Amino acid sequence: MDEVQITTFAAQFDPQPFHLDDAAAQATLFGGLAASGWHTAAVTMRLLVGGGLPIAGGIVGAGGELSWPQPTRPTDVLHVISEIVSIVPSKSRPDRGMVTVRNETRNQRDEVLQLFVVRVVVPSRAQVKP
Amino acid sequence: MDEVQITTFAAQFDPQPFHLDDAAAQATLFGGLAASGWHTAAVTMRLLVGGGLPIAGGIVGAGGELSWPQPTRPTDVLHVISEIVSIVPSKSRPDRGMVTVRNETRNQRDEVLQLFVVRVVVPSRAQVKP
Repeated sequence: MDEVQITTFAAQFDPQPFHLDDAAAQATLFGGLAASGWHTAAVTMRLLVGGGLPIAGGIVGAGGELSWPQPTRPTDVLHVISEIVSIVPSKSRPDRGMVTVRNETRNQRDEVLQLFVVRVVVPSRAQVKP
Repeated sequence: MDEVQITTFAAQFDPQPFHLDDAAAQATLFGGLAASGWHTAAVTMRLLVGGGLPIAGGIVGAGGELSWPQPTRPTDVLHVISEIVSIVPSKSRPDRGMVTVRNETRNQRDEVLQLFVVRVVVPSRAQVKP
């Protein structure tokens, strides 16, 4: 993450002073420029789609519990640690199931910036083309 | 939402076939081009910041429960309906409190595309400058 990425995303989707300008952010709860939580979420998704969470058929999230324990700062380098929590075949739809994945987005100091425990819709084995 | 907005966001943050190309999306669970859930989330935030959820000091989300009951499609026009669920002063920090807000993102047919029940950190009245 750098300052330009943070302010560019914020200008489009979350134009609040603490996401747009470091000087203005000093006087806020953040005490300095912080990325929008949605920017952290979007970059997390990019890391997962880029190979971090290999699921046949793609990553289709139904929903989950999302939190931002700490703000993402300029110079933060993000990585994601994903853990499969459960795999449950659908009772009503034999062609699919639900995988619950716990994703921790961390910076270079291993501080957790985002936690997202998500339910992902997955095709059953028979549906996956080789 | 239009097709260019959907595919531009997806190319940057969620480059999966069903978010990038309508023809490729036909054969997937979505059955046609659908916006990334994070795009729906980001646009929802833009609507809230644009006046949909007026909170002194800004909208600082700590986290919440997020779900996407239906995909967002090209031509969908989004609006958000927000309901304050609770307001709880912090016991440890008298300068702030936690407001829980239920946000439904709907399209022009009033179909719910996203539900986000979020805990927002707010300054207490004494902290807000007139």
